[in-house]
Amino acid sequence: MHTLSYFQELIEKGLLKLQLDKNPKELYDPIQYMLNLGGKRMRPALLLMSNEMFGGNPEEVLSPALGIEVFHNFTLMHDDIMDKAPLRRSKETVHEKWNPNIAILSGDTMFVQSCQLMMQVNDKHLRKVMDMFHKTSIEVCEGQQFDMNFETIDKVSIDEYLEMIALKTAVLLGGSLAIGAICADAFESDIQNIYQFGKKLGIAFQLQDDLLDVYGDAEKFGKQVGGDIIANKKTFLLISACEQAKGDQLKSLQSWLDKKEFNSSDKVNAVMSIFNDLNIKEQTEKKMDQFFHEAMSHLNAVTVNDSKKELMISFAEKLMVRTS
Amino acid sequence: MHTLSYFQELIEKGLLKLQLDKNPKELYDPIQYMLNLGGKRMRPALLLMSNEMFGGNPEEVLSPALGIEVFHNFTLMHDDIMDKAPLRRSKETVHEKWNPNIAILSGDTMFVQSCQLMMQVNDKHLRKVMDMFHKTSIEVCEGQQFDMNFETIDKVSIDEYLEMIALKTAVLLGGSLAIGAICADAFESDIQNIYQFGKKLGIAFQLQDDLLDVYGDAEKFGKQVGGDIIANKKTFLLISACEQAKGDQLKSLQSWLDKKEFNSSDKVNAVMSIFNDLNIKEQTEKKMDQFFHEAMSHLNAVTVNDSKKELMISFAEKLMVRTS
Repeated sequence: MHTLSYFQELIEKGLLKLQLDKNPKELYDPIQYMLNLGGKRMRPALLLMSNEMFGGNPEEVLSPALGIEVFHNFTLMHDDIMDKAPLRRSKETVHEKWNPNIAILSGDTMFVQSCQLMMQVNDKHLRKVMDMFHKTSIEVCEGQQFDMNFETIDKVSIDEYLEMIALKTAVLLGGSLAIGAICADAFESDIQNIYQFGKKLGIAFQLQDDLLDVYGDAEKFGKQVGGDIIANKKTFLLISACEQAKGDQLKSLQSWLDKKEFNSSDKVNAVMSIFNDLNIKEQTEKKMDQFFHEAMSHLNAVTVNDSKKELMISFAEKLMVRTS
Repeated sequence: MHTLSYFQELIEKGLLKLQLDKNPKELYDPIQYMLNLGGKRMRPALLLMSNEMFGGNPEEVLSPALGIEVFHNFTLMHDDIMDKAPLRRSKETVHEKWNPNIAILSGDTMFVQSCQLMMQVNDKHLRKVMDMFHKTSIEVCEGQQFDMNFETIDKVSIDEYLEMIALKTAVLLGGSLAIGAICADAFESDIQNIYQFGKKLGIAFQLQDDLLDVYGDAEKFGKQVGGDIIANKKTFLLISACEQAKGDQLKSLQSWLDKKEFNSSDKVNAVMSIFNDLNIKEQTEKKMDQFFHEAMSHLNAVTVNDSKKELMISFAEKLMVRTS
């Protein structure tokens, strides 16, 4: 069994070999820049790990793994335009360094490249792999649209929120694992279980992200603590608090949400104190643990020898204690 | 042999059956809106016509034909954002009617949908069809980038211009025809010839478009005559004139290109008069005829009975006399 860092290295080397040094430079340079920004390469690593777990030879599915990573970076490039984000991994975003038109078109090109990479599988797996990839891609777009919608609508329910993060974030983890499994000729029921493992793990991961934004260690987390609170971002925590707050507590919460001018740390402290009064941290942890355990029970149901699941289990566990 | 209008009707009915009445509405409504704006459905019609010419049953390749049309409309949706175009077919563009973010994301979704539609071919044709589709998609993106680059660089050569319009416009005609041929099990040499027929025809068509902008009948053409001149658009005509003008003629042309404030019809008349002095109209017609004849010789080389080529020939001829 290979290690996670072996897979990550394989992916980095593969990304370097993509031929991106061509014309028009304005189209290909941003792609190269984006892929060079780094990252944990979590999604392609999951594809390779899943493939090996089901008895495949991960070197043979490097191309579809790279396809997943290129696709993921395409979504980031377009999301950054939509969010008007100035920075990505502490570097200028593509639409800032070049311009939004170039970010649109380079992103479009990355999407096609991701399809071309994904096509590099055996004929017998081709249709199933592409169907999974396309279904997942559409869902990621839907998730991004729901997320944008949430910015302007007043009330979002917990269920709507969970559905949004499932689409925007979690299905791509599930899809990556499923594609690795398909290419290793896994049983249909195993493909379904490894998909669900990834999807539930992805939801747990996103809930952890919501938690860390408020309760994480700023240095370890690498982000401003309370950023979501300052921006009124509808996270699991804020949606839960809005549903449960009553009377003066609700009035106070609402007044902080309505304020146009405020001192950032005053707002973070005030909203956190409402979260604390309502036990929002514990509730979020409970929900997160619930999804994590559902994920693990799907992995448990996969019909391969337990020893082959070790890397996947350690990956999942590491993912869930990444900071706080 | 079916008629062009039979194929167009088949396509319209097929587009109506695409299930686009779903959530999030902000994602799918713009797709429906865009596809309902109409058009001649030239590209999917070419796919169906090519398929029938090579002995296929065009009803069986309706899905990939719709895929081509959805892809084409995806490129228009994103191009309109990049060009800041207010109108498309006399209706508001998607980024104007909704907003640019929605146009980015709906466009992305259309690209995935076009892939899903394109996948609906026989297993034995799947890889070849998708490879042609992806190659063409990348080239269309490259063409759009070259076109954007041309706006800001001083000097564009005729060859660079022809390469740009080949990529941006012509390869999609070639690709549509090739996909129809692949699905009818055409010989490789015939696939290549029908591809080249479409590509050369596409270049001739774009040169005609450049001509009509200056010399076309405004009413029949449905556009403001001289729009390209007013906007300093680097068309075949302007590039040729810049290459050939000398002395006072060149100075006069350059001064019109540099003017920030001017009376539109003065500029159109002045630049047209330079075009006329240099015989630019005749040169463009000659180049256009050259590409048209190259196209026809590729069609001629296709190894099917002449009687089966009639619809394709009449389509090509109609395309080249659409107005002036």
